[in-house]
Amino acid sequence: MDIKTYMQDLGIKARTAAKEISRTESGKKNLALLKIAEIIEQNQTILIAENQKDLAVANQNGLDAASLDRLTISAKSVVAMVEGLKQVAALTDPVGEISNLSYRPSGIQVGQMRVPLGVIGIIYESRPNVTIDAAALCLKSGNACILRGGSEAIHSNQAIAACISEGLAASGLPIETVQIVTTTDRAAVGELITLKDYVDVIVPRGGKSLIARISQDATIPVIKHLDGICHVYIDDKADLDKAVKIADNAKTHRYGVCNAMETLLIAEGIAAKILPLLTDIYLTKGVELRGCLKTCSLVPQAIRASDEDWHTEYLAPILSIKIVHGLDEAIEHISQYSSAHTEAIVTEDYTRARRFLREVDSSSVMINASTRFADGFEYGLGAEIGISTDKLHARGPVGLTGLTSLKYIVLGDGHIRQ
Amino acid sequence: MDIKTYMQDLGIKARTAAKEISRTESGKKNLALLKIAEIIEQNQTILIAENQKDLAVANQNGLDAASLDRLTISAKSVVAMVEGLKQVAALTDPVGEISNLSYRPSGIQVGQMRVPLGVIGIIYESRPNVTIDAAALCLKSGNACILRGGSEAIHSNQAIAACISEGLAASGLPIETVQIVTTTDRAAVGELITLKDYVDVIVPRGGKSLIARISQDATIPVIKHLDGICHVYIDDKADLDKAVKIADNAKTHRYGVCNAMETLLIAEGIAAKILPLLTDIYLTKGVELRGCLKTCSLVPQAIRASDEDWHTEYLAPILSIKIVHGLDEAIEHISQYSSAHTEAIVTEDYTRARRFLREVDSSSVMINASTRFADGFEYGLGAEIGISTDKLHARGPVGLTGLTSLKYIVLGDGHIRQ
Repeated sequence: MDIKTYMQDLGIKARTAAKEISRTESGKKNLALLKIAEIIEQNQTILIAENQKDLAVANQNGLDAASLDRLTISAKSVVAMVEGLKQVAALTDPVGEISNLSYRPSGIQVGQMRVPLGVIGIIYESRPNVTIDAAALCLKSGNACILRGGSEAIHSNQAIAACISEGLAASGLPIETVQIVTTTDRAAVGELITLKDYVDVIVPRGGKSLIARISQDATIPVIKHLDGICHVYIDDKADLDKAVKIADNAKTHRYGVCNAMETLLIAEGIAAKILPLLTDIYLTKGVELRGCLKTCSLVPQAIRASDEDWHTEYLAPILSIKIVHGLDEAIEHISQYSSAHTEAIVTEDYTRARRFLREVDSSSVMINASTRFADGFEYGLGAEIGISTDKLHARGPVGLTGLTSLKYIVLGDGHIRQ
Repeated sequence: MDIKTYMQDLGIKARTAAKEISRTESGKKNLALLKIAEIIEQNQTILIAENQKDLAVANQNGLDAASLDRLTISAKSVVAMVEGLKQVAALTDPVGEISNLSYRPSGIQVGQMRVPLGVIGIIYESRPNVTIDAAALCLKSGNACILRGGSEAIHSNQAIAACISEGLAASGLPIETVQIVTTTDRAAVGELITLKDYVDVIVPRGGKSLIARISQDATIPVIKHLDGICHVYIDDKADLDKAVKIADNAKTHRYGVCNAMETLLIAEGIAAKILPLLTDIYLTKGVELRGCLKTCSLVPQAIRASDEDWHTEYLAPILSIKIVHGLDEAIEHISQYSSAHTEAIVTEDYTRARRFLREVDSSSVMINASTRFADGFEYGLGAEIGISTDKLHARGPVGLTGLTSLKYIVLGDGHIRQ
């Protein structure tokens, strides 16, 4: 079978499974999730053994340490998968929820019912845990999915997929609810993102270049997350303690994550006071500082930031710092350079806090809190399939609700239009 | 200036205006809408005179009667425009509304704030009233818009645009909040739908081929409405009176509209009883009947429907009729042939009604009500920019809310991630 036919075949099967899973009641979906968890647990040895095959090849090919780490399935990651499945099973099922049902002057009742999107295509890099997370979220939200993980994880993914299939079958659900692409041919991605008749939305997870390429070529809507150039603005009315805590946490809690701060904006009225405190912390933790002219005059250890720096998501212990006149310039800078992921203000000033909240156009806008909170778990979504920096459909962390849509429902009693 | 530069220039201006209008408070936006209404009213003579120029050309070019009708601005249509503006002014402003704000275990408060999408590009045929409707909805929802109407309405649209600009200026709002494309060059559409950096969403309004072409070529998300192949299913547990009323209204209330019924499905248990009643009505009103084999044996006046008929949106006094075994076959037929716009069941059976509501995957699903109710006004949205048959972002009638998105907001008190 050629790639085109193979992918189309997956699509057709997914569409059929989607119809059934969209109607499956919560209890049955939850039992399936718990059954899969049980099977994953029982098959720990097999999963780790299959993962070793992938790791051996990856080592031979000289994969870098961070990638190897993400590729590895350990006893600990099996526990995390099992926990993840249980957590998704415990989430409230959004499907079928009816909202805003009210009478109209004509006598009809109009409301909206939450429904699954249909078939979700997920394209990700070599992280086997994504296979289980994505499958769980799609299943719970009543969607079928086609998963295309990185080729380096092919044995791991097939082993996980076998557990999922077994769990679905044991629960009386169609095994095509979750399908993984078993070919490592890259052409499969090109087919998947153009399967208009069978796939309703594509969720790419991975590096910026992967996502940019997929968005470029897809003829199906893409829920995408390009990059996280997140800002913290410390206002001159900020509480110094809160500002130091937040600016520290937002940068140094974890470096390689999309919700880490990349640029710190400081009001000039407070810069001389707070910069020495922060510089101490950052330098102790080994963070390289790149500043504007004013910053460099206050922080001798900082090197001059170029315009390129304000555009850069470092994902590393590097921070760019800019001293601004005040709120207006901070909002202006954010509007120009931010990737619209997450921005925070630190201030005790009511009016400025209110303006920041309203005027900053990012997927998450925060007052006196660390940007690191921008996360599905922290927001109470339970889990996330990704973080959207788009505006349409889903914005910010995308959980179960983001994998659903709303249809209108009308209840009448023989009503006709006059 | 070439078309590319011209359109880019409109885009840049729209982006700037969008920033301001997104922050403008409701009262000011409402005053602008009422001011525009006043100016439209005062300029009735000019609007009609400019429209006459378009009509003269259209007559020369032999435009058909229906198109001429849609193109015409009369004293009555000026009143409708003014009324429309007042109605939009009276609607609740969705922008800035905060929902689901609640405390998380970490101590932060997380909620969502409704925000404008940014810049909306609207492409439509030669209906000058759309210019005012679309402008009003975009303005009220805090969006800037670029309007590209059909070239046959160019004088009318420019005259309306002049009134809008005057109203915006008099209200202290940027006149670039609403811009119309003043060239009739078709290349302008191609530019508009690929202005990725300046336009956030495209709303095409018009015939199926226009929308299909735009969806095909756009690199910006499109909120689209392709066609309305709407079904009514009369169950054998239907109340006969309700069924007759609804099947009559859904087909004959208006023929050329997207929410008119195109295919009638009847359970075989009730067909012999209800078909004579319906046939009487349809034939009296001049509706051509095309039926399945069983239908034709009960209705001698019906001609045989081909497979093509089940796929066809007639937008005319033609109806296809199919007799089905029952609910399962009805749902199956709908799933295969419907355009996922609007479907209705007529039944007194609780369980079947509930199944239909849940299992039919269309933008509007109705029980015992005419498909003709699928409409923004009837649903209480106040007005609609279109009806979406897509699943992502907006589904069904798209009103003010459909022109907005949700961003997450986080309120803390110095909170950091542990």
